[in-house]
Amino acid sequence: MTIRLATDDDKDSIWAILEPMIRRGETYPLPRDMSKSQAIEFWFAAGNETFVWQEGGAIFGTYFLRANQRGGGAHVANCGYVSATGSEGRGIARAMCKHSLSRAKERGFHAMQFNFVVSTNTRAVELWKSMGFEMVGRLPGAFRHPEHGFVDALVMYQELS
Amino acid sequence: MTIRLATDDDKDSIWAILEPMIRRGETYPLPRDMSKSQAIEFWFAAGNETFVWQEGGAIFGTYFLRANQRGGGAHVANCGYVSATGSEGRGIARAMCKHSLSRAKERGFHAMQFNFVVSTNTRAVELWKSMGFEMVGRLPGAFRHPEHGFVDALVMYQELS
Repeated sequence: MTIRLATDDDKDSIWAILEPMIRRGETYPLPRDMSKSQAIEFWFAAGNETFVWQEGGAIFGTYFLRANQRGGGAHVANCGYVSATGSEGRGIARAMCKHSLSRAKERGFHAMQFNFVVSTNTRAVELWKSMGFEMVGRLPGAFRHPEHGFVDALVMYQELS
Repeated sequence: MTIRLATDDDKDSIWAILEPMIRRGETYPLPRDMSKSQAIEFWFAAGNETFVWQEGGAIFGTYFLRANQRGGGAHVANCGYVSATGSEGRGIARAMCKHSLSRAKERGFHAMQFNFVVSTNTRAVELWKSMGFEMVGRLPGAFRHPEHGFVDALVMYQELS
């Protein structure tokens, strides 16, 4: 298994991972009808460092790392992670998060912030807590879940030593 | 006094208001060396509704209203407000905030969120509280203030009835 920077050649594989997540609309505040080009533009936006989790020739996960704000807020990092549907329980998200924390420290970020963790995504919430993130904010009803209706979103934060 | 939609003709006046705020770097997480065109692009970004506070022929304040997130988060609004340096105490920020809450309701938003209120900007924090916003999150050391160093940023939120 390796985690490495994504290249243009990975874009089809990355879209294959992003599309089911986007279509389900349960975890990220993205339009469920987003096109491939819109999703790839978002995932590879200017300022993003985009990585893939690879095993053999296949990609099972991807994440981006960026500054969460500019100017006086540019020392706080932000990430988004997605694992391939059906690859749950293999530790892919955990490995990507660990990699991102290390990379963020390396780049000199002082902290990492997740702006919008959907509270019903309990698997993610528990994982981020186990990785050292604290819940520093709760946004009441800020996410409209396709099944559960309006649910809270959480702001999670970790200072990097 | 009137608050109205901004036009292209207002861009010089808006820049005259934004520039001192950007150069001071004490309240918004924006690069202090931002150019006029970058700042205007940010203030009039796609999806923003941009307003000005006008009295006689002169503009003393400006704000934008937008959706804070997309997809399942698109029912929560976000705003940024700036008043002209030297116009403090005239109620311009309060009038713009009141206008924005009304406009957000009119557009069907369910809530308004401020993602990054610098904690040392106590004038703003108190104003937003008096306008019905609650502090729902605190980001430790998330803003590097040019004088005070690393200070907290606050997440403030108001559900719209």
